[in-house]
Amino acid sequence: MLHPDMIATVEQWETVNSPIRVTIWGENFHEQSDRDRDGMAQRYPAGMHGAIAAGLSELLADGVTVRTATQDQPEHGLTDDVLAETDVLTWWGHAKHAEVDDAVVDKVHQRVLGGMGLLALHSAHFSKIFTRLMGTTCSLAWRNSADTELVWNVDPAHPIAAGVPHPIVIDQQEMYGEFFDIPAPDELVFLSTFSGGEVFRSGCCWRRGKGRVFYFSPGDQEYPVYHHPDIKRVLANAVQWARPDPGADFAPPAVVSEPSPRFGAGATGAVL
Amino acid sequence: MLHPDMIATVEQWETVNSPIRVTIWGENFHEQSDRDRDGMAQRYPAGMHGAIAAGLSELLADGVTVRTATQDQPEHGLTDDVLAETDVLTWWGHAKHAEVDDAVVDKVHQRVLGGMGLLALHSAHFSKIFTRLMGTTCSLAWRNSADTELVWNVDPAHPIAAGVPHPIVIDQQEMYGEFFDIPAPDELVFLSTFSGGEVFRSGCCWRRGKGRVFYFSPGDQEYPVYHHPDIKRVLANAVQWARPDPGADFAPPAVVSEPSPRFGAGATGAVL
Amino acid sequence: MLHPDMIATVEQWETVNSPIRVTIWGENFHEQSDRDRDGMAQRYPAGMHGAIAAGLSELLADGVTVRTATQDQPEHGLTDDVLAETDVLTWWGHAKHAEVDDAVVDKVHQRVLGGMGLLALHSAHFSKIFTRLMGTTCSLAWRNSADTELVWNVDPAHPIAAGVPHPIVIDQQEMYGEFFDIPAPDELVFLSTFSGGEVFRSGCCWRRGKGRVFYFSPGDQEYPVYHHPDIKRVLANAVQWARPDPGADFAPPAVVSEPSPRFGAGATGAVL
Amino acid sequence: MLHPDMIATVEQWETVNSPIRVTIWGENFHEQSDRDRDGMAQRYPAGMHGAIAAGLSELLADGVTVRTATQDQPEHGLTDDVLAETDVLTWWGHAKHAEVDDAVVDKVHQRVLGGMGLLALHSAHFSKIFTRLMGTTCSLAWRNSADTELVWNVDPAHPIAAGVPHPIVIDQQEMYGEFFDIPAPDELVFLSTFSGGEVFRSGCCWRRGKGRVFYFSPGDQEYPVYHHPDIKRVLANAVQWARPDPGADFAPPAVVSEPSPRFGAGATGAVL
Repeated sequence: MLHPDMIATVEQWETVNSPIRVTIWGENFHEQSDRDRDGMAQRYPAGMHGAIAAGLSELLADGVTVRTATQDQPEHGLTDDVLAETDVLTWWGHAKHAEVDDAVVDKVHQRVLGGMGLLALHSAHFSKIFTRLMGTTCSLAWRNSADTELVWNVDPAHPIAAGVPHPIVIDQQEMYGEFFDIPAPDELVFLSTFSGGEVFRSGCCWRRGKGRVFYFSPGDQEYPVYHHPDIKRVLANAVQWARPDPGADFAPPAVVSEPSPRFGAGATGAVL
Repeated sequence: MLHPDMIATVEQWETVNSPIRVTIWGENFHEQSDRDRDGMAQRYPAGMHGAIAAGLSELLADGVTVRTATQDQPEHGLTDDVLAETDVLTWWGHAKHAEVDDAVVDKVHQRVLGGMGLLALHSAHFSKIFTRLMGTTCSLAWRNSADTELVWNVDPAHPIAAGVPHPIVIDQQEMYGEFFDIPAPDELVFLSTFSGGEVFRSGCCWRRGKGRVFYFSPGDQEYPVYHHPDIKRVLANAVQWARPDPGADFAPPAVVSEPSPRFGAGATGAVL
Repeated sequence: MLHPDMIATVEQWETVNSPIRVTIWGENFHEQSDRDRDGMAQRYPAGMHGAIAAGLSELLADGVTVRTATQDQPEHGLTDDVLAETDVLTWWGHAKHAEVDDAVVDKVHQRVLGGMGLLALHSAHFSKIFTRLMGTTCSLAWRNSADTELVWNVDPAHPIAAGVPHPIVIDQQEMYGEFFDIPAPDELVFLSTFSGGEVFRSGCCWRRGKGRVFYFSPGDQEYPVYHHPDIKRVLANAVQWARPDPGADFAPPAVVSEPSPRFGAGATGAVL
Repeated sequence: MLHPDMIATVEQWETVNSPIRVTIWGENFHEQSDRDRDGMAQRYPAGMHGAIAAGLSELLADGVTVRTATQDQPEHGLTDDVLAETDVLTWWGHAKHAEVDDAVVDKVHQRVLGGMGLLALHSAHFSKIFTRLMGTTCSLAWRNSADTELVWNVDPAHPIAAGVPHPIVIDQQEMYGEFFDIPAPDELVFLSTFSGGEVFRSGCCWRRGKGRVFYFSPGDQEYPVYHHPDIKRVLANAVQWARPDPGADFAPPAVVSEPSPRFGAGATGAVL
């Protein structure tokens, strides 16, 4: 099959294109907790996962098929069948990272290395899947005092930044600040400033195995950020950036044992 | 307009898509020189630029409109009108780099910074436009002794590597080897080995301003490399990778003077 | 204390410099196995760890204090006391990765994030500590057929490459080839070619937390590579590159909770 | 000779170390202009170049030999002899970039590619030497309204950040903001925020040829930033980071023509 970037005609498009299969994963804890239930019902009546899903469906229409999965479901909603039908996974968690089953994390990890895109959102910086992919603590500075956040674009040609203002203005948001303990991003797309003066690498891309990983910090349970039109646009862009090659087999890179030499006396005739 | 990566439906595609406008630039010297004319006529009866153009047209069909321009034309074939209609420019030069008019290089440079993609091919490592974009000498090691070249992919999820074997085998090719004096690539896609034992960073990506630059070393006047199906595929992939946002205005980044502050007492009411 | 790079006078040097404390960790299995014992005794009479330690001591003299630790020791020789006195750890393992205690890996991981340098050598690409720091499979292609390996330098100003020829020639060595499933290196120093035609990113640098990580592939139990003078030089360079700031506290980056804002009405007077 | 990073004993140090030869280049225009003379005399009685030189001498003592050179001198003070004795060059210019002689820029460029370190300071973002090394416009946003600038460290293990607080606080400074049109830095060390809400990649490292380039934005003719102890520390660190290998020959990378193959039938006996 053709890579989407290689589709040059409507005929090719109609033939090979299929919607990007997105699974929106949510912790779904604040939505149900005694402390947060009422506020969440106002800000996110369908849950944060529901809001993220709605934004993608609105912007990408029949270019995506969107489903949700939550931590409180069996296997956290990420059964083998669901993962096998997921091209891009978005992950939001906060209070219950430690309760995510390692066996599920193992499967998600393998699928990312095999080509599935992953969007780690906001407090998912501390999720098991993100810290495993990064190899670092992913710690940061934070303050919840309704700072204004400005999201500046430092890579104007990057597809994830297409169609958003410079800066995006978020009236109220939790502050996440440096030092953010991540590997240096392969591509740094957004920097956020806060009214308190802090700075954060808020939009970062990495490749891991055959998969693409995007971390994006705006989005918090206490602020209605996932309804912000520019934030929805960034997520829609990122889903498309993170999609695997349509011909991807989702097999992680594996050892290749004892290949025949290509040059020299040891080469078998068939190789060249 | 939408970025191509943001096109999610056939309707959007039909509405906003237009073919990528590619200009294939060739030095067109070996084709005409006494020494090389006969061999070139055999290997490249339509010139190297003609062969490259034919490969793109074959693979990308009506996804591209391809024209050629050569150094021996007025303004080297790169008039304001031609540049204004070029989304991606490919550049092959070798013996006559020094004779390329600086005024033309200035214009090409500005257009790359404004969003036009550039593919610098083989001996274009020493072209004025490439060395200006790199800021280094772009020197390398070379030997013309019909080495076999193997082109290995070190970024399997990269769109430029889609659909090509690992490695690509080129039976005979000039050797280009390290040290290649370039800035560290933003994305390293291909490494080549040669039967003499050398290695070369043969497929390298950079972003400069709003534009994307890809250097690809396979391709030489003395070997029919541009007819090789895998090389044609890489070039077709790269044209699509390097294309600007369809809404691009092709204006290089410019100084922004005295913007109003976004925070604090000095902020104008209108800003937020 | 001063960073070594900030030491400008002999007085400062004498005051603040202390030898780099290096621990050479070895699996020490091939040295004792029935299959390999005799060959190892010829190639590495003091064990591979002993050979690596001797090379460092020879080249760095009283600039280092070198100790060894092996997997068959209690806590694999990496007790809290040993780690607390280790600035740079080198790691060689192959057949017994799976038997390394996760609790030890946890401690080594934390110390790297806190500033300790790590040199992962050859088959340590599959060690628990390296794959954890990388977040990928770290799989590769390999063939054991006594290939000649050439190690080419692609970053001539890099301190790890100081004083070694371009290329380093290793007469016989196991082949490690691409695709090597690692995050794109922060700094790519060496590329290796093999007589079979393969290529490998054989010298790669990353920063993780406050620590520096260098992977170097030459070195195998079946070939006397750690006696090669250029390989010894690379390891001596790398130990110095990977050393922490002498004032390092070896605490991994940690969350900073609720810092006071620096700007605006919420700022406390003391901050600025 | 040994690389400084390879010096492990006091004896080696005494034998091979020599002070870093630093040339502080200044435009020296504001110091003399009718408009700015009086203010400059108050802020920078020895000129900005004098202040920078004094800071380095204070912090690095006999680890450096510091000289100054200014644009109003013959050959801008950068004669062949001066360049031949310069290990690290710092460059501050603003109003008179266009009047810098291209022949001098050519020589500085060649020496950087050959190994000389370059520190481009503040408004030197638009200097001929910096834009030539970058290949981009180096344009940015700016506002001169005495913003507070906070300089945050995003690479805590980086030697240029050793010994400075997080953040550095500059009470009053010109604002430089994104988008800053530079190639993605090889190493991003500092991010600045401003009381107006903007952000800037204010400390960036690149390697070009054999040389190292550091851009650092704090420092302006209208504010006494070069007397700030943390800014002096950053510059002292950067001079040491940017120094060439003591054994450097300062020859830019050059073409290597027709080297003998290392493998195969064509190899000469002497090569291996």
